[in-house]
Amino acid sequence: MTTEKSRARDEVIDALHGVVSEMHDKMMKGNPPTMTLPQRTKKNIGFDEKLGVYKYGKKTSVRDATSLGSARMLLRSLHITEFIEEMIDNEKSSTLREMYYISEGWGHGKFHSQNESNNLAEDLEIVTKCLREDFKLRPEEDGARIIGNVTFEEKNRKGDWMRINSRDDVGDSGYGVPYNVEPEKLKLAEEDIDFVMAIETGGMFDRLVENGFDEEARCALVHLKGQPARSTRRIMKRMNEEWGKPIVVFTDCDPWSFRIFASIAYGAIKTAHISEYLATKEATYLGITADDILSYELPSDDLSKQDLNALDAELSDPRFSDGWWQEQINLMKEIGKKAEQQALAKYGLDFVTDTYLPEKLSSIGIGY
Amino acid sequence: MTTEKSRARDEVIDALHGVVSEMHDKMMKGNPPTMTLPQRTKKNIGFDEKLGVYKYGKKTSVRDATSLGSARMLLRSLHITEFIEEMIDNEKSSTLREMYYISEGWGHGKFHSQNESNNLAEDLEIVTKCLREDFKLRPEEDGARIIGNVTFEEKNRKGDWMRINSRDDVGDSGYGVPYNVEPEKLKLAEEDIDFVMAIETGGMFDRLVENGFDEEARCALVHLKGQPARSTRRIMKRMNEEWGKPIVVFTDCDPWSFRIFASIAYGAIKTAHISEYLATKEATYLGITADDILSYELPSDDLSKQDLNALDAELSDPRFSDGWWQEQINLMKEIGKKAEQQALAKYGLDFVTDTYLPEKLSSIGIGY
Repeated sequence: MTTEKSRARDEVIDALHGVVSEMHDKMMKGNPPTMTLPQRTKKNIGFDEKLGVYKYGKKTSVRDATSLGSARMLLRSLHITEFIEEMIDNEKSSTLREMYYISEGWGHGKFHSQNESNNLAEDLEIVTKCLREDFKLRPEEDGARIIGNVTFEEKNRKGDWMRINSRDDVGDSGYGVPYNVEPEKLKLAEEDIDFVMAIETGGMFDRLVENGFDEEARCALVHLKGQPARSTRRIMKRMNEEWGKPIVVFTDCDPWSFRIFASIAYGAIKTAHISEYLATKEATYLGITADDILSYELPSDDLSKQDLNALDAELSDPRFSDGWWQEQINLMKEIGKKAEQQALAKYGLDFVTDTYLPEKLSSIGIGY
Repeated sequence: MTTEKSRARDEVIDALHGVVSEMHDKMMKGNPPTMTLPQRTKKNIGFDEKLGVYKYGKKTSVRDATSLGSARMLLRSLHITEFIEEMIDNEKSSTLREMYYISEGWGHGKFHSQNESNNLAEDLEIVTKCLREDFKLRPEEDGARIIGNVTFEEKNRKGDWMRINSRDDVGDSGYGVPYNVEPEKLKLAEEDIDFVMAIETGGMFDRLVENGFDEEARCALVHLKGQPARSTRRIMKRMNEEWGKPIVVFTDCDPWSFRIFASIAYGAIKTAHISEYLATKEATYLGITADDILSYELPSDDLSKQDLNALDAELSDPRFSDGWWQEQINLMKEIGKKAEQQALAKYGLDFVTDTYLPEKLSSIGIGY
């Protein structure tokens, strides 16, 4: 896995053929075919202190065709390999959902739930060290929207490169991030910003846009749309690596929002095999914090039982092990409150850009 | 209410002042202030056979300040009026959520739930015959994405008109429809299409885009994102009225998808006061149908109890009273199945554009 670029066509096909070869070689020796992959259990996922992200450990498991379930998985892997090769040759792509339906024609290899097909796609990523994007598989979810003085070059359907400035060439809804943001599809062309701000809710994104915060603070605004899609995390990682821009994350004060931050900064368990590719270790959490609820006297809601459980889980999550997070989470439990970013509107529509963000940003060393 | 254009600044403020005047005049006569509005109960919503849309009836109710609840509503109406005037003067807008939080400063007028503030915004639309967009209030939800050879002119933050062709000037994610699609903000500039196709799921939208269906069939593709936002329904209505293009709706075969179609074609109960402004009576349902499940042997799921209840409710809904719908809904109940549009992938990624859509479109008289 490289964080530089996705794999070239031939590399992807070679990697997939590697999976097929393992099966073929076993059979030639008269043994049942096998597929070796890392154990995808919680026990085999560790927090890599050096890289600062989640990673799979060294434990592997071997699927062989001696049980019906495993035999089906191997059969499916062969069908998927064929399907992906076809897509690559025909310059097509498919949603994970479409692949699930396409398996209708795979006889005993038919998937019984979307979960099965999603997991197998992830297995193949792990084994081949390729990305889902290399396989031409895409999710249903929408990518982020970006507004700010950054210019991307995107390859369109006809194979032409289009140059799009996310401030001057787009409408109010901004630049829509495509599902594939690898260099073969998207180039980071030009920028005139000091940092990137990721924003949880559409309402707050639109507020910052209307208030011209991107120009005033010289930043690119990224609407995360809740738990950010892979392409959203990846494009932020690229802006951080290629342009050297800090990423700051502005969310609700809520245990689920903290997870959004953690997935941006340290990776998520589900995508542990590509953490170093998606996670931006240098990302900084800006707010809303429990401190903010108190010092800005924000309108807040009581924590639910689920919220409290999630906060407890976070207290023992290595991603939240540093002193600052422990303090904030414990304070939140103490006051029993959570708050939305839009609660800042209590002080009017400009408070967030005139007062809150300048104060918070200067506290982490970003002035403008 | 005109379907031509939204109200000019002064008209909006005059209309809001009308609400205030009613209160003022009563008080000058020594009576408690009042606000008169149509009864927003199901009983006072009728299906207007002539217009083919849902409409409020003639029953009105009067809120007066003789009970604490009504007095609070009148107080809130005054605060909102002031807030909207300020936004209009400062060229600002706000989300409904922000208005809810802003009411923190309104003393006894503070909203206790977002539902209260949303409903009052709708009340004011009804009483003033203005639109939420005129009030500079916007929803959290995202608007649609459009791909196809249609050109819009959108007024950006700086007041400049930008010309955006939804095929040539956008990336793969298409043109993002802003929340306000009234002529003061968005102009329908140019088109070279024969019809507009509204699509329920992102997966299918991306499929049609990848397969170049917009060019092959000379249409604009609109991704509805589930239950379509007001701006999505409105921009389709405008493409239908101003450009004379038929609207065809391509969704899952599912009772909730039928409601998506009905809200596009006949309006929704929640927006009955602006049905003639949002609903495109000429919209045609294309599929997926129960017929399709059988004739194309599509992968399907069993109907749940909730599905069956929803289908029964639709059988007695005037929007589904015609023979074709009754037949399709009864057939669906009979076979006990529903299906997703992506189920067409059973026959490969091109089946939908090579076979299904050409067959279905020609059955409703659209050939290409």
